[in-house]
Amino acid sequence: MSLVVVGSVAYDTIETPFGKRERILGGAGTYVSLSACNFCKPKLISVVGYDFKNEDLQLISDHGIDISGVEVNKNEKTFFWSGRYHNNMNSRDSLATELNSLGTFNPKVPETYQGARVLMLGNLSPQVQMKVIKGFYKRPEMIIMDTMNFWMNATPVELAETIKLIDVLTINDEEARQLSGEYSLLNAAEKILTMGPKFLIIKKGEHGAMLFNSKLEIFYAPAFPLKEVFDPTGAGDTFAGGFAGYLAKQEHFSFENMKKAIVAGSVIASYSVENFGVENLLELNMEIIQQRAKDFINLTKVDFDGVL
Amino acid sequence: MSLVVVGSVAYDTIETPFGKRERILGGAGTYVSLSACNFCKPKLISVVGYDFKNEDLQLISDHGIDISGVEVNKNEKTFFWSGRYHNNMNSRDSLATELNSLGTFNPKVPETYQGARVLMLGNLSPQVQMKVIKGFYKRPEMIIMDTMNFWMNATPVELAETIKLIDVLTINDEEARQLSGEYSLLNAAEKILTMGPKFLIIKKGEHGAMLFNSKLEIFYAPAFPLKEVFDPTGAGDTFAGGFAGYLAKQEHFSFENMKKAIVAGSVIASYSVENFGVENLLELNMEIIQQRAKDFINLTKVDFDGVL
Repeated sequence: MSLVVVGSVAYDTIETPFGKRERILGGAGTYVSLSACNFCKPKLISVVGYDFKNEDLQLISDHGIDISGVEVNKNEKTFFWSGRYHNNMNSRDSLATELNSLGTFNPKVPETYQGARVLMLGNLSPQVQMKVIKGFYKRPEMIIMDTMNFWMNATPVELAETIKLIDVLTINDEEARQLSGEYSLLNAAEKILTMGPKFLIIKKGEHGAMLFNSKLEIFYAPAFPLKEVFDPTGAGDTFAGGFAGYLAKQEHFSFENMKKAIVAGSVIASYSVENFGVENLLELNMEIIQQRAKDFINLTKVDFDGVL
Repeated sequence: MSLVVVGSVAYDTIETPFGKRERILGGAGTYVSLSACNFCKPKLISVVGYDFKNEDLQLISDHGIDISGVEVNKNEKTFFWSGRYHNNMNSRDSLATELNSLGTFNPKVPETYQGARVLMLGNLSPQVQMKVIKGFYKRPEMIIMDTMNFWMNATPVELAETIKLIDVLTINDEEARQLSGEYSLLNAAEKILTMGPKFLIIKKGEHGAMLFNSKLEIFYAPAFPLKEVFDPTGAGDTFAGGFAGYLAKQEHFSFENMKKAIVAGSVIASYSVENFGVENLLELNMEIIQQRAKDFINLTKVDFDGVL
């Protein structure tokens, strides 16, 4: 039932209309793992630099996350990102992206990570993502991959090669349009599902997420309506982490279980963005998750026998 | 169980990436009535000009819509609108808006329309909408009002006065933000629900619609995913018409019935935008509606006992 996560562990400086935080714990690998750890004990593959604080490693480890696959690069600093969100929180400026130790990241799959059932590839170069897939003696049953427009522009050939090897692709609506060349998300999904993945998740931010299977059956999950979004950083990663973690716990990867995994991811992401960075993820427990899951399901529930 | 609809009857010239249609039948009153007529026999209040074709009046009447409240102004032409949609269909340029007979529209409620249970006020000036409300000897049980940003800017005081008198307000997300001064739709809904209406419907176009009651309970309906949108003209009116028509047929205006009314409106709107103007509305029947309603419900259905 194990889950391996690969993704960045970073320090972020974040400015939103609600305030500013300097060099707080961030990175896709961190968000994915801290979300997934509500359902299973994720094993993390990542790299940090010499400036990474021991207490931050400890904090990750304290959440049941295996950090034996987190390499410490003694010659480089930790990946650093800085961004400023605009008033509507739907757009942001990246002020700094310093790859540092992530720039030479050469991921290895530790022996104790072999045999994982689910592999979650956080947003990294497709070459690094492929290297992790190839690092498994036996292919994980379910490989989930997150990517972004940057790789569609920078390394389209490598991206296409990696996409061929996976089961679930998670991208946002604009990226789905870019990758497929289709404006209609239904047409986009149809095209992307011929590129390799058996499932596609289109993330639509404040408008929710859509899950497609290869028969083009669709599950549409709204985003949980919030009074305020404090900090959207890591929302997509938190969503993917909840999805992967919930799935890793299931005996079968049925479409029904994948739908519930989408609910799990949506619920945790909605809670995470109500505070800065990973602050809310550190407070999370199953009671909070189950309560919001109920509210979430009630959002779309109609007492309906199929006839209007 | 009767429904009275007030709204424009117009000629539209529409250009989309899929083609162009000149002076086709349009107008909020037309779209609302042709949608609602699938569930009840709407009674229409509107005005047309001397150029309005008898065959178009006949076509409306042939759909079980009472046109005895449609005045023919012998001195003016029919309201005319012309627009061009951009490639993504989410934005458009208005090329012409000629009010003509609508500019001096002085609506009267015919005797045979008195006693209506549901009143649907299509997008018109709030003064005209209020005049229709006041024209009823006995207030309809359920007054639904559509409006738009134009009236928020042009006649905010009159708009506020009219909004005080209604039960359900339907506006889009940007308009909800403008009317409330709140960015979060949850905060916007909370504020707007203190202005008079007991229910608020926020239309989010390709992202669906949200229904709020005064306890801030929420129903979130996705938009039906379509391969292509041919012509979004009248989508909001068609949605409102399905909503109002379905409600008019129900014995109780419970929140559950309002949810199903949202489904009815969403389903008809999704079918309507797959063709130009009212073309698909003219072809519609209950079999098509029920089939899509089933598919629609399946979009968000999760087999979920409340515990993840």
